Amino acid sequence: MTAAELEAFLRKEMPQLFRGSVTIEQADGRSCRVREGYHDGMLRPGDTISGPTLMALSDLAMYVVLLSAIGPVALAVTTSLTINFLSKAPAGHDLIAEARLLKLGKRLAVGEIVVRSAAGAEPVAHATCTYSIPPKRN
Amino acid sequence: MTAAELEAFLRKEMPQLFRGSVTIEQADGRSCRVREGYHDGMLRPGDTISGPTLMALSDLAMYVVLLSAIGPVALAVTTSLTINFLSKAPAGHDLIAEARLLKLGKRLAVGEIVVRSAAGAEPVAHATCTYSIPPKRN
Amino acid sequence: MTAAELEAFLRKEMPQLFRGSVTIEQADGRSCRVREGYHDGMLRPGDTISGPTLMALSDLAMYVVLLSAIGPVALAVTTSLTINFLSKAPAGHDLIAEARLLKLGKRLAVGEIVVRSAAGAEPVAHATCTYSIPPKRN
Amino acid sequence: MTAAELEAFLRKEMPQLFRGSVTIEQADGRSCRVREGYHDGMLRPGDTISGPTLMALSDLAMYVVLLSAIGPVALAVTTSLTINFLSKAPAGHDLIAEARLLKLGKRLAVGEIVVRSAAGAEPVAHATCTYSIPPKRN
Repeated sequence: MTAAELEAFLRKEMPQLFRGSVTIEQADGRSCRVREGYHDGMLRPGDTISGPTLMALSDLAMYVVLLSAIGPVALAVTTSLTINFLSKAPAGHDLIAEARLLKLGKRLAVGEIVVRSAAGAEPVAHATCTYSIPPKRN
Repeated sequence: MTAAELEAFLRKEMPQLFRGSVTIEQADGRSCRVREGYHDGMLRPGDTISGPTLMALSDLAMYVVLLSAIGPVALAVTTSLTINFLSKAPAGHDLIAEARLLKLGKRLAVGEIVVRSAAGAEPVAHATCTYSIPPKRN
Repeated sequence: MTAAELEAFLRKEMPQLFRGSVTIEQADGRSCRVREGYHDGMLRPGDTISGPTLMALSDLAMYVVLLSAIGPVALAVTTSLTINFLSKAPAGHDLIAEARLLKLGKRLAVGEIVVRSAAGAEPVAHATCTYSIPPKRN
Repeated sequence: MTAAELEAFLRKEMPQLFRGSVTIEQADGRSCRVREGYHDGMLRPGDTISGPTLMALSDLAMYVVLLSAIGPVALAVTTSLTINFLSKAPAGHDLIAEARLLKLGKRLAVGEIVVRSAAGAEPVAHATCTYSIPPKRN
């Protein structure tokens, strides 16, 4: 699927998660880049981007790179995620998540995600994520 | 802080995160129980509760048990979280997260969170979470 | 399998891992308790038990509780492990790991492990671990 | 510290961990590469490299890259590690771990480690690891 096809599919399939201004800038079956436009709902006390915002975006980027590899398998689900928060992402700036597949098996996929703020080059969060791929129904 | 005081503090400090119908049922400095009322925005394809919903609730429950131990330190921040999704949480039912502190140091706290659906007893997710405690300013 | 049968099976199948004085004190398909006798090879600078010692014991305890549930499936393998080191385990004392299954599926099992020093009650490490269960060959 | 100085320091400080034929091929304060020579003690049932071998090497590589950045601080300790096992590492071949620092703070460092078998290019394991840096004593 092209990045545009994937974006259209996700906006239709999962409006609750593909919220706000999430756009897929690139996705090629090995890696992807997803941008989430800033909005005040992302903040936590201290006026930095909240952990849940970064976790949700990491999980979404993993889903995007996985589907760009295996096609529109909407029922692929997260089995686990580990995230390290590295630096504060400041209010007012978009978030950019880059995900790449570390392993793509028949039943499990593992990926790595780095999230940056559009405000600077250093990563604000790093995550690894495992997805379960449901068996095909013919 | 009592559960009620904590709830009032959090509703005021972090309206973006203490959303919807989140209530603190119990919090005593060692463990806590937090309930999030069901709403359709929690869903993902397949009509089960989304990973981000469970991640956000786990992180919030950790924050609640931590503040119940150290007081209203709003700027305590998540440094890392690992979550395993164990079973599907069905649409239509509240979520209940129970968190307990595994370690409370001067600068780092580590906790464990189990999330269940009000629909059944088995855990839908299990997480461990580390928070950084900022130094006191006198 | 009883704890004694499991211990005999593991000593035979995996002499490299079931080393030293590892004994299975309890294992019942839901939880287990494994003790590793202290030896100086466990140490790191600072005279505390090394991370790798605690990681290996956590992984072993998960393997033990899993096999106590599904039988002598030697080829079950770890897919992931997350460990938090909570306090220093002092030199000179045995380690005791307690593992319990959080989820037992057909292909994946998830468990939680707490490791303590025989010297005190507080946990020195907490881990979650996922194992892959190979398909049966008839 | 150069790779050679670091290797000499570690062989002296931690003989239990810097075992066998571990060599530091490169270490520059940002990344490092560590090789562990194959030996039969690495194996588990199925004749593949055991999880504990890969976990210990990942932790060691993180320690090496950290000390290459901050100097011979032997008492830096692991606070957490998450590892995903991606493919089987075959018997008979050395292991090569490459670590890089994701974040270097005053008290915490976070790194990422990829382990490969000398037999092939694909990663056998991927880990993220957090170390605590003790305060300086003057």
